[in-house]
Amino acid sequence: MIEKLWTKKDLISLSELTADELTLILDTAAEFKKVNRRRVKKVPALRGKTVVNFFVEPSTRTRVSFELAEQRLSADIINMTSSTSSLIKGETLLDTLKNIESLQVDIIVMRHAASGAHKLLSERLSCGIVNAGDGAHGHPTQALLDIFTMREKKGSLEGLNVAIVGDILHSRVARSDIIGLLKMGAKVTICGPATLLPREFRKLGVRVCDNLRNAIENADVINMLRIQRERQQASYFPSISEYASIYGINSETIKYVKPDALIMHPGPINRGVEVESHIADGPQSVILEQVTNGLAVRMGVLYLIAGCLGN
Amino acid sequence: MIEKLWTKKDLISLSELTADELTLILDTAAEFKKVNRRRVKKVPALRGKTVVNFFVEPSTRTRVSFELAEQRLSADIINMTSSTSSLIKGETLLDTLKNIESLQVDIIVMRHAASGAHKLLSERLSCGIVNAGDGAHGHPTQALLDIFTMREKKGSLEGLNVAIVGDILHSRVARSDIIGLLKMGAKVTICGPATLLPREFRKLGVRVCDNLRNAIENADVINMLRIQRERQQASYFPSISEYASIYGINSETIKYVKPDALIMHPGPINRGVEVESHIADGPQSVILEQVTNGLAVRMGVLYLIAGCLGN
Amino acid sequence: MIEKLWTKKDLISLSELTADELTLILDTAAEFKKVNRRRVKKVPALRGKTVVNFFVEPSTRTRVSFELAEQRLSADIINMTSSTSSLIKGETLLDTLKNIESLQVDIIVMRHAASGAHKLLSERLSCGIVNAGDGAHGHPTQALLDIFTMREKKGSLEGLNVAIVGDILHSRVARSDIIGLLKMGAKVTICGPATLLPREFRKLGVRVCDNLRNAIENADVINMLRIQRERQQASYFPSISEYASIYGINSETIKYVKPDALIMHPGPINRGVEVESHIADGPQSVILEQVTNGLAVRMGVLYLIAGCLGN
Repeated sequence: MIEKLWTKKDLISLSELTADELTLILDTAAEFKKVNRRRVKKVPALRGKTVVNFFVEPSTRTRVSFELAEQRLSADIINMTSSTSSLIKGETLLDTLKNIESLQVDIIVMRHAASGAHKLLSERLSCGIVNAGDGAHGHPTQALLDIFTMREKKGSLEGLNVAIVGDILHSRVARSDIIGLLKMGAKVTICGPATLLPREFRKLGVRVCDNLRNAIENADVINMLRIQRERQQASYFPSISEYASIYGINSETIKYVKPDALIMHPGPINRGVEVESHIADGPQSVILEQVTNGLAVRMGVLYLIAGCLGN
Repeated sequence: MIEKLWTKKDLISLSELTADELTLILDTAAEFKKVNRRRVKKVPALRGKTVVNFFVEPSTRTRVSFELAEQRLSADIINMTSSTSSLIKGETLLDTLKNIESLQVDIIVMRHAASGAHKLLSERLSCGIVNAGDGAHGHPTQALLDIFTMREKKGSLEGLNVAIVGDILHSRVARSDIIGLLKMGAKVTICGPATLLPREFRKLGVRVCDNLRNAIENADVINMLRIQRERQQASYFPSISEYASIYGINSETIKYVKPDALIMHPGPINRGVEVESHIADGPQSVILEQVTNGLAVRMGVLYLIAGCLGN
Repeated sequence: MIEKLWTKKDLISLSELTADELTLILDTAAEFKKVNRRRVKKVPALRGKTVVNFFVEPSTRTRVSFELAEQRLSADIINMTSSTSSLIKGETLLDTLKNIESLQVDIIVMRHAASGAHKLLSERLSCGIVNAGDGAHGHPTQALLDIFTMREKKGSLEGLNVAIVGDILHSRVARSDIIGLLKMGAKVTICGPATLLPREFRKLGVRVCDNLRNAIENADVINMLRIQRERQQASYFPSISEYASIYGINSETIKYVKPDALIMHPGPINRGVEVESHIADGPQSVILEQVTNGLAVRMGVLYLIAGCLGN
């Protein structure tokens, strides 16, 4: 019944989806969340279908979450990582994936640094393409799990005040969150060091705010982005400890947070940087719940896409 | 019924098979090709059987094709790669595989550079051994998929003119193709730079030809071998571009190709070297069909072997 | 019925188990050994359960044995290796595993060099934890398979004379064997170069013996530990060849071995070092049988643990 409403073979970006389609994914995910609480956490929905996880950029959490989603849908699964695929020398990405498709693969879940790669491939291949993260552009299933968690905890997204804090500039999570949240009627504030805060988001109706207190004191949800300590981000602000004291949720800044506000983080968390340890483990944190919901959301996306593929 | 005719627990080289056995594999593969077109691409034929993919040399395509074949036969699968197996220090290959066999493994699919390794192991182990490529000696399932594709498109192999072009000297694909094609009654011509063209194949009844036009103008099938740019092959001919112009299928040389001749390539293709891009994607090319058929052929081989194992 | 007696969600060390619990594991494993001899080597016992193999230290044999055990129990399986997990930067082990648990994982099978890690995690996580080896501390499933093999071949462990020979100091296998064997009523002798022979085991009732003949001439079972040639062990004794002649089972020392004594080795064997080649392949050797039994024992452990998990 539900899948009749879904007509897309790909999930590339939330910008292509209507609010109704986003709601359909969230509703489908809610059903799969129930499956994951059963004694037998498995449904035969994708039995005899093949899903390839093609991760050109390394990833552990997202890949594991997708792989488990596929297993619980009873799909056949092939994992190809960057090191595996680099062995296919002298071949274009399109040729590699055309070859994979020729194995009667139904869905390719792909992480690739090039932002346009997913779109191009979705047009050239008849199998489904799911974007599992692409450079700094988008990470739609992460945004969907964030939105799912907010809706589950707060009832509705309409009018919800969501603050996203950190390195907005390099964050594919922030970009996808903003797109999805605005479609669902939420109000978004972004906050972070000025050097990491792209002002052009104002055009979309996002409030841009470089003062943490202003950003969070009315927020119903605070999504703290991860600082990529291993990358060059440190050059955008004086030091990690200064960043933590000004833009982290800690014993000081928690005073400005509403007592019923949710504290979110896409993980993996740098304890004591984005969120102080006792707060990350405290009653307002839904960080592990996000992980649980990610699995349900990915099951929902794969289920809907498989349902509208021809074969 | 069909599997009664099959009595071998191993597939090491096509030289050990009769034309009837080759035909049995092709017929079995044809059945599995139908399975791969179904909504549920899976049969329970190898349920409760264990297959180990033991790839001492790296490989992506062949391993993925085998792994998917095993999944669609419902086998339990263990993947061991060169890096994994190198961790088993101070142990001989035979000891490693004796240990694997002690886990009640049914079939070991092995890629190994040493040409004699598969034969030795097939004699020492009671589980089935499938050769997934061994140095420059043989690659029987690649040859089987090539032959399957020719038979499917051309009806019969009897009297079929097949030209194999490129680095014959180092190609396990060429070696296995020649053996299988001759058994099936095809006429084989090999062509390539003189330095890469072993004259001793003449003894087998193969036509040896260093002029491309002569080799291909009567060919019903042209199989273009991959140039291993990353290896030392370049030293066998002046330059890649010269090779491409003399031995590649391009806008010039396509003029000598019969309009209904098939153009094949084992992949991954170097576009513009062995085959010009528009020809590789054109109506005579069956390159992606070969990939599809490879899956069916591997399902057929594993099915036949599993059927004649004792347990 | 049988699983009612089992109440533990974790297997961290054999020291936590009673002789009855050890016997329950051995009896359960004996049932699964029968499954592994069937045509269809698979039971649905863990269908819809998820097991994560989290190997922070590399391992091939133990991981493959666990993975196959999980497949034959029909579990859903995620493999995470050291290289995979090192990608999760800036995160504690507890956070990594809390995240894994949030994916509704039932059991985590973990190899980790830190001896206390398994215990800590078993207290903090509600999913089951199985120790697949931890530094030099313990390797309970290896000990269980050793004990299973002895019981199967000798009928009972009560009063059985077991000699363990080699680098006792660094061996997690020896440590776990000793604990389990003493609980089951066996008499244990340890033997090896004085530098590798911890005298404190005497307190447990173990006979410590640096002369091989004295150690083995009354032994019903001789377990030869692997020399880690790649590690620094060589500095503990003059040379490998001297070690082999003094502490190896070879054409000379086999004269002191009772004709019905079992010769065991955890593998991978250094032929000609711990055991001479013809003896390793001879009638007294049960080395490959140990591999077979390891699979059955791991199936038994996973089955019992899954049966007492809440969900």
